[in-house]
Amino acid sequence: MAPGTTGTTGTIGDSEFDRDTAISANGPGGGYDAHLHPGWTVFGALNGGYLLALLARALRDALPHPDPFTVTAHYLSASRPGPAAIRVEPLRTGRSLSTGQARLLQRAEDGTETERVRVLAAYGDLAALPDDVRTIATPPPLPPYEECRGLLDPGPAMAVPVPELVHRLDYRLDPATTGWMTGRPSGRGEIRAWYGLADGRAPDPLSLLLAVDSLPPTAFEYGVTGVVPTVELTAHIRHRPAPGPLRILKTSRNLAGGYMEEDAEVWDSRDRLVAQSRQLARPSL
Amino acid sequence: MAPGTTGTTGTIGDSEFDRDTAISANGPGGGYDAHLHPGWTVFGALNGGYLLALLARALRDALPHPDPFTVTAHYLSASRPGPAAIRVEPLRTGRSLSTGQARLLQRAEDGTETERVRVLAAYGDLAALPDDVRTIATPPPLPPYEECRGLLDPGPAMAVPVPELVHRLDYRLDPATTGWMTGRPSGRGEIRAWYGLADGRAPDPLSLLLAVDSLPPTAFEYGVTGVVPTVELTAHIRHRPAPGPLRILKTSRNLAGGYMEEDAEVWDSRDRLVAQSRQLARPSL
Repeated sequence: MAPGTTGTTGTIGDSEFDRDTAISANGPGGGYDAHLHPGWTVFGALNGGYLLALLARALRDALPHPDPFTVTAHYLSASRPGPAAIRVEPLRTGRSLSTGQARLLQRAEDGTETERVRVLAAYGDLAALPDDVRTIATPPPLPPYEECRGLLDPGPAMAVPVPELVHRLDYRLDPATTGWMTGRPSGRGEIRAWYGLADGRAPDPLSLLLAVDSLPPTAFEYGVTGVVPTVELTAHIRHRPAPGPLRILKTSRNLAGGYMEEDAEVWDSRDRLVAQSRQLARPSL
Repeated sequence: MAPGTTGTTGTIGDSEFDRDTAISANGPGGGYDAHLHPGWTVFGALNGGYLLALLARALRDALPHPDPFTVTAHYLSASRPGPAAIRVEPLRTGRSLSTGQARLLQRAEDGTETERVRVLAAYGDLAALPDDVRTIATPPPLPPYEECRGLLDPGPAMAVPVPELVHRLDYRLDPATTGWMTGRPSGRGEIRAWYGLADGRAPDPLSLLLAVDSLPPTAFEYGVTGVVPTVELTAHIRHRPAPGPLRILKTSRNLAGGYMEEDAEVWDSRDRLVAQSRQLARPSL
């Protein structure tokens, strides 16, 4: 059984992910209302990939091109479940690419408007790209899905608590990258997994933005056990993903001075590299 | 002889690079005047790394922290030599990080103000970071400087013209990555080089932003011969570089659909990974 097939109720446009990233335009000026759903939290704060997908949806609505080609988010303050406002500013419209900025805002306890995330992105049309490929990249080695491990599977007690977000996802980790789950991190900073949404919704460019930042952090395999806040994350969406399970490889090579980079690559069921991302994170050491 | 030692006239604060990225505040509101210098052009347009360094300098002036930790630039239109305006907007100031946005603007021929580059960046203090390192990254293999090749060296005729920018730099390419120079690209998408500034100025966080985007594009080793415009580039500066030559490894794994990623890592003379970058580029195929 492959990921995304445990649940069969979700389809693109009608799924948990689609409902919980819904936006509604509140006028013609690029303003949107949203509601940040508690189901996508990690110990009280919304997951960064979820927020990226939400803002990307508003940009898709406001820009003339449909697909995020490159999206950068700076996470300015922790987002909490509840109402939020999005403001999109288109910057440039070209024939094949358009560029825009989006801001996510919430009211602080004292009523002041606080910026949570700022995004800068270029959109294009993935379906309009030529088919030429000169790649030397190959999909990550991964044991069969049945031999990989989910965080909710029965088994040895987890060394870390399981965040709410995990219930929205259907992923299985390569056992070679699960040492952190039982307090025996590999020291290699690598996480490999099969990945899907729990309700079986197929992947699309928006859900790829969730995918690049919703697996356990590679920092866990360096022995970090606390939260790993993202300072900045940039994702490139390179191809519309085919239906079926995704494979994700996350790697961190350099943990130094209290910061680390975390790279992710996402492969679709047709062996195409559909997304690449890099973030600068600040693990709690 | 190592790079940066052919010239000995440049020092940090008094060099070609410093003079040509000078900015002057035109009031207290985050506005700066600049002059884009023709010495840093590639066939008429300013180099992206030069522009990144210029905008990073304005951000450094406007934000409370001194060093760029992560900087993302979207290149909206080609910048030309001549006057330019920079506008910086601080977004958030924290204890260890501050975030800001910068825009580069020039007047078009019809007098309208046109945005050239938009940058989103987080700044911190590299000198304040702890010394802990848990890295698995290692410096790129590179033959001795004397066995590497400069674009201005005597030798076989170049298959491509040499841009003005090359005269500001002192780099020597690993001969294993110079097939493109004589029309025999390797097909591997990799460029390795010793790197310095022509007048001998030592590297600093600002010049690292130039370094990540001023070597020949990896696309040349895939057989691309035209210009390779950058859509978006993100650079992480991880350490203040020690004086002495830098080593740079640039790799591109996936050229597909007319776009490619180009990653760079920059190592200092003490074998520290001082910068990492990734860009999404659109080579002219």
